[in-house]
Amino acid sequence: MAPFLDRRDLRFQLFEVLDTARLPQRPRFAEQSRETYDDVLNVAYTVAERYFANHARAADLHEPQVVDGRVVLVPEAAAALRAFREAGFYAAHHDEALGGVQLPWVVMQAVMAHFQAANIGTAGYAFLTIGNANLQRVFASPEQQRRYMLPLIEGRWTGTMALSEPQAGSGLADITTSATPRPDGTYAIRGSKMWISGGEHELAENIVHLVLARIQGGPAGVRGISLFLVPRYRVTPDGAVGEDNHVVLAGLNHKMGYRGTTNTLLNFGEGGETIGELVGEPGQGLSQMFHMMNEARIGVGLGAVMLAQAGYQVSLAYARDRHQGRVPGTRDPQSPPVPIIRHADVRRLLLGQKAVVEGGLALCLYASALVDDVQTGPPEERTDTALLLDLLTPLVKSWPSRHAQDALSDAIQVMGGAGYTRDYPVEMYYRDNRLNPIHEGTEGIQGNDLLGRKLTQANGRGLALLAARMHADLDATSGVEAVREVRSAVALAQTQTHTALETLLGQAGTLDPEALLANANAALELLGTVVVGWMWLRQASVAARALEAARGDDVAFYRGKLQTARYYAAHELPKVRALADLLASVDRSTLDMQDGWF
Amino acid sequence: MAPFLDRRDLRFQLFEVLDTARLPQRPRFAEQSRETYDDVLNVAYTVAERYFANHARAADLHEPQVVDGRVVLVPEAAAALRAFREAGFYAAHHDEALGGVQLPWVVMQAVMAHFQAANIGTAGYAFLTIGNANLQRVFASPEQQRRYMLPLIEGRWTGTMALSEPQAGSGLADITTSATPRPDGTYAIRGSKMWISGGEHELAENIVHLVLARIQGGPAGVRGISLFLVPRYRVTPDGAVGEDNHVVLAGLNHKMGYRGTTNTLLNFGEGGETIGELVGEPGQGLSQMFHMMNEARIGVGLGAVMLAQAGYQVSLAYARDRHQGRVPGTRDPQSPPVPIIRHADVRRLLLGQKAVVEGGLALCLYASALVDDVQTGPPEERTDTALLLDLLTPLVKSWPSRHAQDALSDAIQVMGGAGYTRDYPVEMYYRDNRLNPIHEGTEGIQGNDLLGRKLTQANGRGLALLAARMHADLDATSGVEAVREVRSAVALAQTQTHTALETLLGQAGTLDPEALLANANAALELLGTVVVGWMWLRQASVAARALEAARGDDVAFYRGKLQTARYYAAHELPKVRALADLLASVDRSTLDMQDGWF
Repeated sequence: MAPFLDRRDLRFQLFEVLDTARLPQRPRFAEQSRETYDDVLNVAYTVAERYFANHARAADLHEPQVVDGRVVLVPEAAAALRAFREAGFYAAHHDEALGGVQLPWVVMQAVMAHFQAANIGTAGYAFLTIGNANLQRVFASPEQQRRYMLPLIEGRWTGTMALSEPQAGSGLADITTSATPRPDGTYAIRGSKMWISGGEHELAENIVHLVLARIQGGPAGVRGISLFLVPRYRVTPDGAVGEDNHVVLAGLNHKMGYRGTTNTLLNFGEGGETIGELVGEPGQGLSQMFHMMNEARIGVGLGAVMLAQAGYQVSLAYARDRHQGRVPGTRDPQSPPVPIIRHADVRRLLLGQKAVVEGGLALCLYASALVDDVQTGPPEERTDTALLLDLLTPLVKSWPSRHAQDALSDAIQVMGGAGYTRDYPVEMYYRDNRLNPIHEGTEGIQGNDLLGRKLTQANGRGLALLAARMHADLDATSGVEAVREVRSAVALAQTQTHTALETLLGQAGTLDPEALLANANAALELLGTVVVGWMWLRQASVAARALEAARGDDVAFYRGKLQTARYYAAHELPKVRALADLLASVDRSTLDMQDGWF
Repeated sequence: MAPFLDRRDLRFQLFEVLDTARLPQRPRFAEQSRETYDDVLNVAYTVAERYFANHARAADLHEPQVVDGRVVLVPEAAAALRAFREAGFYAAHHDEALGGVQLPWVVMQAVMAHFQAANIGTAGYAFLTIGNANLQRVFASPEQQRRYMLPLIEGRWTGTMALSEPQAGSGLADITTSATPRPDGTYAIRGSKMWISGGEHELAENIVHLVLARIQGGPAGVRGISLFLVPRYRVTPDGAVGEDNHVVLAGLNHKMGYRGTTNTLLNFGEGGETIGELVGEPGQGLSQMFHMMNEARIGVGLGAVMLAQAGYQVSLAYARDRHQGRVPGTRDPQSPPVPIIRHADVRRLLLGQKAVVEGGLALCLYASALVDDVQTGPPEERTDTALLLDLLTPLVKSWPSRHAQDALSDAIQVMGGAGYTRDYPVEMYYRDNRLNPIHEGTEGIQGNDLLGRKLTQANGRGLALLAARMHADLDATSGVEAVREVRSAVALAQTQTHTALETLLGQAGTLDPEALLANANAALELLGTVVVGWMWLRQASVAARALEAARGDDVAFYRGKLQTARYYAAHELPKVRALADLLASVDRSTLDMQDGWF
């Protein structure tokens, strides 16, 4: 069976491309070392393999069902989350005082990558629980943290985020769930929340929902939205699980994939009072929720990468094993069929996957390292780092999500009919990943976020910072022969992109906002493609350097990096020009299309 | 509920873009008229809506199962095929002497499009049966036709094609199924056939398999492959269903989609003798089978288009109905949410679908009309027409297959979370269509066919004929203001494509075959994109002309055509340049990649 994760590449990304091994120089990580991180990753691999990979297909075939009012999952899911908890991963990045080991976020994300690759559906519960606790860590009161956050960090309860409603999916400004003040300072929550992942199950004693709602009498639109901690079962003052809080399961959503993660419609305040506690100040709900959402967006990008990675491993093993046909030019029909990896078009399908998987992983870990830099990097750089992270977030969310889908399609294609059957997991990964361009902000939302907000905020400083970092790497590689073609392709694409964005954004004052944003999707694709090109230049330059002293399997590993970077430069980066031209021309073809003309 | 098929567009394609209404000028169709065709299409719509659309989801949820050795389908499938038969569609295109009405093939394909849109899984049985009979019509003896073909034309039995084997999927040269001569001139067939759609079921009294096998002692490779008629039950001299022919179901394949079409592993000669009859001469099997295969490839392209079309209709209806968010620049948060079709990015997702669906339909029907021209067009043009059809076939098979997948992804995206659930059919269409780039020749096979065979045969005359037809349409539209941008985008893309292909093919003599074919996939995408651009120019030019006298709903219809052509010109055709450059440079990045480097 193919391995579910390429451990060599993960270490390359963390320790050769990124400076993860130098993080212990920072006070927060002073007790740690490269060995600490290797140990943690080894535990993650073992737990993921034994307790998560074992039931990925079972969770797909037996999706959550309501039996006697309870949501029943495959039994392996509970065992998996128990193992995750016992390994200490819910707490790992938290302060020692909270039971954590202060693991850097980039290492934590590398840990999570194992579980996403092994079984994204079951990993979803852990992912949401960690995100929920992280939000509470920033915004909840000490008292709230004690009662609602600690059980999550201890892995005793799970968490969700409850934003969307049946009538308000992407349009969060229109949520109507209400919060009515109660005499004791808590609130009575009433309304329905849709698409709530992990919204109901029997995996834990309690579920803590982070709910967006409107305090009655508040302003319309987003300024009237506040954030509430709403447990499934009420929590007593000493933190014990109390009586029913009347959060009622109204239905399960039946999805194409990602089936192991229960997705629910929940009614709050049905059959009794649902009591919630306000987090922070009224009206801050959406910006508070974005703390969790931004983290989740990077997590979605990483999840997409890991699904594509798992599919790549399967299709690569198949391509080496399956014999079929002969290479062009073979004259003897009795010569034996070759492994299909010998066909150039199969190698194209594998290279395309490798480019997405390893380019995407580099991007997600780069962004995760920026999260550490914002928190523990040199204080004078943190504002800029945060701006760069803001700019990259929509790219990190969307580029892997959409390109993982292409990569997984290529994994199926390598395997032909076999890939289309349920005998192999690639069709499942393909169905699973199709959620990623939708949840935690659709592609449309990401495009508008990038072009309408991130590229213009702080006078475009985010883009300038990105360009400066790219130029630094271009400068550093200017003499390296092994990356010459890759370097010039990245440089050209970077210039084309920058020029197009400057041209477009230069008109921001005079264009009407609809025209400015009409091709936001192209901006997302354009900048994503260039940034991943940059990620490939970084990998190639490390590989070129390492190759000089490399021995054994490492030689092939580094040559593969160089060749994949060349592939990306020849096949992907040239797509930039058409996108850049489209943006710079402020094309109106979508804008001018009328409803009645469809 | 959204209609499963856009009847207005189908008639536009047949009667405004193509000259279908003039086919009755040809002797074979002399009894017919535009009204004949309209009547036939109306019957097709009614039958498809009532008997096929009704169980598309049921056939997906309850895939074929083996119960007591029999393959059990949802009961609606048998009723659907009965209705299809009673409407006379198995016979419609055949001679009157065979019970047909001599319907032109292009009209027959328009008929089939209804069933593919309504329920591609159940339509599959009819599709294969018609193709099987068409092959027999050309190559089988009169006696074989009487016993094995007529029951198919009468819709009493069904047919299959049985090419692949477990060890030989795309590599047909390596099939090992054997045919041993029997004293009476028939053959004993032994071996296993894999991926056989419709290979076993209870829908009909008998199943006629067209089987590729090797007569013992024949040459290796494709020259040793012969074609056999192999019934599931033996057929008595008077054509009745006789005893078991020992074609044994060894297993069902469980697929991601397309679940209504049973897909089987069959063992021939298990538990008794399987008797088959040779079709035509020994050693002609592969070229005979290509008669059915080429027809099937156009059918696959059309099936892909119709799945995308069905998905487009659903997502369009949703986009008009679902209210969410506000257009950029709206300041009042209390203004009501707009239908999501008001968002430019949603219109992009819809325009992208419309471009694929209607451009793809134009292409498939254009090719189908060429089939008629080869058979009934001016005799002196038939050789050229056949060459052009040969060239287009891999494009007709592959462009819609892959782009329908993107279109269906966009249909899901328009609908967000809803599109990802099984509450709507778009996720099913998406799963169904993923088969289309695989079966009847993978993308890799199509690319090699195009670049390694079709572009070079007859000294490249196919490409010259294509260019001449494109230039004729470019010339004819040179003064039409409404299509000016579209026309220049097509002209530019055509030039870039032609130049790149000439550059590449000019080196065919000196390049090694592997290098020549290394980027065959890019050639497929390149030429497909340009040809569909041409199809959009043709539609736009008809629309521009018709718009002058148009009234009522037609005005919006034609404006939609013009705007979609503009969209295609602005968003799709500019992708040609990067592909053309890649081909012309004879890029070696896939070729140079080594197995060990992955």
